[in-house]
Amino acid sequence: MSQPPVINIGICGLGTVGQGVWKHITRSRTKLESRLGARLVLKRASVRDLRKKRSVRVGASRLTDDALAVATDPKIQVVCELIGGTTLAKELTLAALRLGKTVISANKALVCDHGPEIFAAARKHGGHYFFEASVAGGIPIIKALREGLVANRFTRIYGILNGTCNYILTRMEREGLPYSAIIQEAKALGYAEADESLDVDGWDTAHKASILAYLAHGTWVSTKRMVVEGITQLSPEDIQFAREAGYAIKLLAVIDRDLATDELAVRVAPTLLPRTNVIANVNEVYNGISVAGDVVGETIYIGRGAGQDATASAVISDIVDAVALLIRGNAPLPEPVEHRCPLTPPERVTGSYYVRMDVRDAPGVLAKIAGVMAQAKVSIANVRQRPAAAVDTATLIITTHASNEKAIRAALARLRRLPVVLREPLLLRIASFPA
Amino acid sequence: MSQPPVINIGICGLGTVGQGVWKHITRSRTKLESRLGARLVLKRASVRDLRKKRSVRVGASRLTDDALAVATDPKIQVVCELIGGTTLAKELTLAALRLGKTVISANKALVCDHGPEIFAAARKHGGHYFFEASVAGGIPIIKALREGLVANRFTRIYGILNGTCNYILTRMEREGLPYSAIIQEAKALGYAEADESLDVDGWDTAHKASILAYLAHGTWVSTKRMVVEGITQLSPEDIQFAREAGYAIKLLAVIDRDLATDELAVRVAPTLLPRTNVIANVNEVYNGISVAGDVVGETIYIGRGAGQDATASAVISDIVDAVALLIRGNAPLPEPVEHRCPLTPPERVTGSYYVRMDVRDAPGVLAKIAGVMAQAKVSIANVRQRPAAAVDTATLIITTHASNEKAIRAALARLRRLPVVLREPLLLRIASFPA
Repeated sequence: MSQPPVINIGICGLGTVGQGVWKHITRSRTKLESRLGARLVLKRASVRDLRKKRSVRVGASRLTDDALAVATDPKIQVVCELIGGTTLAKELTLAALRLGKTVISANKALVCDHGPEIFAAARKHGGHYFFEASVAGGIPIIKALREGLVANRFTRIYGILNGTCNYILTRMEREGLPYSAIIQEAKALGYAEADESLDVDGWDTAHKASILAYLAHGTWVSTKRMVVEGITQLSPEDIQFAREAGYAIKLLAVIDRDLATDELAVRVAPTLLPRTNVIANVNEVYNGISVAGDVVGETIYIGRGAGQDATASAVISDIVDAVALLIRGNAPLPEPVEHRCPLTPPERVTGSYYVRMDVRDAPGVLAKIAGVMAQAKVSIANVRQRPAAAVDTATLIITTHASNEKAIRAALARLRRLPVVLREPLLLRIASFPA
Repeated sequence: MSQPPVINIGICGLGTVGQGVWKHITRSRTKLESRLGARLVLKRASVRDLRKKRSVRVGASRLTDDALAVATDPKIQVVCELIGGTTLAKELTLAALRLGKTVISANKALVCDHGPEIFAAARKHGGHYFFEASVAGGIPIIKALREGLVANRFTRIYGILNGTCNYILTRMEREGLPYSAIIQEAKALGYAEADESLDVDGWDTAHKASILAYLAHGTWVSTKRMVVEGITQLSPEDIQFAREAGYAIKLLAVIDRDLATDELAVRVAPTLLPRTNVIANVNEVYNGISVAGDVVGETIYIGRGAGQDATASAVISDIVDAVALLIRGNAPLPEPVEHRCPLTPPERVTGSYYVRMDVRDAPGVLAKIAGVMAQAKVSIANVRQRPAAAVDTATLIITTHASNEKAIRAALARLRRLPVVLREPLLLRIASFPA
């Protein structure tokens, strides 16, 4: 019998995720090799600091501090890019792809910012680029969109794509504490990065939304062209109001495709979601994604969105797909059909809204505000007024009937100019998604 | 530029699902062909009655009442077996596979009863056998287990795999009506088959559990070797008790693997699931599956489990995978590693239980019953007694502390022999699954 083929794997970046990949491949090598009919060799790994202690044992001869050397090593067929960032990561990804290698990545920012260039390099030189781990960690959502649901046109995809934000919102809701208190603790516990802004300002979610929108619709929507709002402005009062009205507040990515007009709308924003919705009940660091297809209806996917093991699970799944392709000739895979959807103009992005603002507590203020809303053609559904912390000020919470992004933004612009409105108003979306 | 390859597809069985496949391939042909780089031709379809009206237009020259002729047509490379049953379906599946064709199936009974023979035929003759549609309709759960979660060993898989039963249980809970009332209406609405026994007695769920257990663990567990219980004995009282105690009752398939002892336990039974569990909130005809892997943690999948469109979505996804393989040389795929797990003996299948029984309403009866439970070493957690419909009888509902299948079955055998126990007691499992 002939010897099984040997596949050499290089790990660029032996940090948390890289160590997880190393550990779990080592542990389940027998099963994976027997399934694949190939030998998997963890050939080399790059680190930033050769002397740092790690949780996995890697012989000194296999360690280097030169990530590019791993990516371009002629013996290595499969390169895992786990260093993050978009500079060296991009350089070594393109270098490996130009040598015809297959690259596996967990790097959402890189895919989002340089996807077309990277995919083209893979195509041109006969390699592959896989990135299941870049969205929703261990949930095989990219495989579901590309393969399992290939018969569908997607009308709406929405969900929680950032575990850090979901953890913070879950704790704010359960404990009634302000954002500032929870973020400190989340950092101490390792649930938030030292620089948390990428997560809490919504950019990490936006990167992932961009990737999902491309996979589902073949259109790249830059994060610059999306509404992207984070969770730092939320107060315990917002969450309490939502709860009393039967909603949970979640940082949602929403990708809406109008099959009639072909328009695509992508946004990331904290959103009031009815408690009866499954995604509203996805808590802690979990991610949850709802995918509505025109054939299958709604399907939902829930799991851990980040962390060493969940991310390693996705990277290893990509490695197995890559190796199965390699030992069978490495032919190109079916790809999303490129299709440039126009973006939905703000006046056709409809929904109802929640506006919280601090106002001067004086007679006639509510009438003035209601007048401004009416001028902008935004119809008020409900108003709640409470004394605010400062003297002679009140907090107003207004919810609206169905309106649209253009109208509500016009209303907010006018409200900001009113002398009785004391600070920047907070705008939240209210989703009426079924299920 | 060379012509794209042409793939001829044959549909055996143009019933509900077959018409769905025909309709959706026709509708999305352009997208699928452009993605695949191949032409898809719906070459022929077989029907039982050539004169019957159908919702899709198929030219008379492409219709036949000879399913085997479609399956063995030399021009056809991909055969969809959508006729159901295990006789002709098996014959034509094996005939097509022996000719090296790829067969796609939605037939859980066939996979469950003859999986090894069918898989061997596919392997031997260089074709493939795909069956994503056989479990959980449009949810790509088979792809998730085989590919997306390949890095994992699975500790527990459980879920709702039968939409008919879930629909009935949802309506029983919402309306407080007995099983007998709902099943009649479910039949009238087309949510239950004319002969509902395969669904409501748990066998359909058991077929699917057997398939999932094989994919996850490489072990075929015949439905004959599982505990399989259905929902026909459930009363509104059981559901009300469950609700008051914070549970929903769901017909669950549970596949437990003990990684330490290597033992595997598969059961299908109506189960009390805490309301806080996501799967407990999967209602109507939806299916929901929780998959716990030792790397990824828990992931959850929810979607429609049956129906024309959901099933067609899964069949078409298999067709696309099959065609992508065909035009690239049709090499064999990684397969589950066969592994014969021993079945967990009943004394190590632990859990707590719910027992409902009608008893003579006389002094000392409870003492007698409690004595029998104690003798069997089953510890009672809670007893509720209510007058039953008949004179001088009472209904007892007993819940137990943690026990095991052997002990509770011994207790039930003794209870049945007591003259004061008037009818067959009902046994339900209580799950304490997290999340």
